[in-house]
Amino acid sequence: MLKFIIENNEKYQPGLSIDCVIFGFHDNQLKVLLIKVPHNERWSLPGGFIPIDQDIDTAAVTILNERTGVEGVFLRQFATFGKIKRNDNHFGNEVLEYLNISPEKGKWLTQRFVTIGYYALVDFLKILPTRRNEGQIIEWIDHKEVPELILDHKEILDKALNTLRIELNLMPIGYNLLPEKFTIPELQKLYETILDKKLDRRNFLRKITNIGILTKLDEKKNNVAHKAPNLYSFDKEKYEEVLKNGLNQGW
Amino acid sequence: MLKFIIENNEKYQPGLSIDCVIFGFHDNQLKVLLIKVPHNERWSLPGGFIPIDQDIDTAAVTILNERTGVEGVFLRQFATFGKIKRNDNHFGNEVLEYLNISPEKGKWLTQRFVTIGYYALVDFLKILPTRRNEGQIIEWIDHKEVPELILDHKEILDKALNTLRIELNLMPIGYNLLPEKFTIPELQKLYETILDKKLDRRNFLRKITNIGILTKLDEKKNNVAHKAPNLYSFDKEKYEEVLKNGLNQGW
Repeated sequence: MLKFIIENNEKYQPGLSIDCVIFGFHDNQLKVLLIKVPHNERWSLPGGFIPIDQDIDTAAVTILNERTGVEGVFLRQFATFGKIKRNDNHFGNEVLEYLNISPEKGKWLTQRFVTIGYYALVDFLKILPTRRNEGQIIEWIDHKEVPELILDHKEILDKALNTLRIELNLMPIGYNLLPEKFTIPELQKLYETILDKKLDRRNFLRKITNIGILTKLDEKKNNVAHKAPNLYSFDKEKYEEVLKNGLNQGW
Repeated sequence: MLKFIIENNEKYQPGLSIDCVIFGFHDNQLKVLLIKVPHNERWSLPGGFIPIDQDIDTAAVTILNERTGVEGVFLRQFATFGKIKRNDNHFGNEVLEYLNISPEKGKWLTQRFVTIGYYALVDFLKILPTRRNEGQIIEWIDHKEVPELILDHKEILDKALNTLRIELNLMPIGYNLLPEKFTIPELQKLYETILDKKLDRRNFLRKITNIGILTKLDEKKNNVAHKAPNLYSFDKEKYEEVLKNGLNQGW
């Protein structure tokens, strides 16, 4: 695929790429989707190049799908990375060597690249990546155990996580990440996992119920011995409304 | 300048530009810095191309300065715009015709361009733009009276304004935009102008004082006939602290 792109580079936007940070949550675990590239045994974010005839938002979907088989994920652009030193020639030359392309013919790849970051948050049990290349490994890796990544991918990942944390103050979260019926402690755990810190139980309860997106069900969680916690579900309509207008505890 | 870039295009990142949305506030007015381009008498955001040897954040500063003479402004990247249709050939060809460059030699300009948006908020009385080209007009224009803009610049401007409004929920604002001593109603007016809506007086007072960035002074505004309002100033140290950590009325 990469060889095809380099050899048909007039079909791709020059000097511009897209990298995707796919966060996966399930059962109090926050993971990130990473690919081990064959040429140097190092890990990377799933990324690629922008077809000249595709909007960048569409290209992000295409690239994610081509690299990982993942589809149906809502990707949000969060930042563009453009330090001059972010892609050194060393990296590009290694790739060319691996693909058996001469430096002259592979000049397109070793030019300066700016990359646009997209991110998503999904349930990692519902999204099954599939390997697209022999020798390529795709894995959900715990966000605290991320190995060394190529180029500036660690910086891109960190920025995406930071954006996700800020989003918690602006948007509701949890739909599609929790079972249909859940307890407040389960929802709190989701927030704690993403924020990587403990939250005060009462404070959380007050704030989350104030948003008005929860429906208290007439059921209790029944596998708990005693003092069974109440079950809740999201009020889909209100959830969508808040998603559209923002939490805006604002001004 | 543009002619120089097209003729020396190997010194610039291909297919990538930067556009700056500079908001100016003073005395309850919110304006935006626009340039009238000579070749077709239409208005545009100050923008330009990325020197191959500059980080994109540095290039944004360079571009703003080269187009408008403005410097010392803190630019924040907010989004990248990359619809295929955003720059039609029509526009590029007009520019080439105006600059008397053949379509063949000007191919660099008529390629597909993706643009990175940066924005800033300043006091428009403190920032004096200077014209860099004969025939070019630079003006602070009220954000509600923005004329038709080239390309997708209106969309870029709208997105920047939306980002600024969201930022009000995340960051303190007002330092450098208000006189050193100000009243709460003056501060509230700043918020109302940016948000383009009336805010409840008591609610605003409660929220703004809760942030803890204001120092109540032992003075009153003395040009007011009766019931003179109290004067406040920003507690610079706390302001910086909140700027760093975010308002985070969060979780």
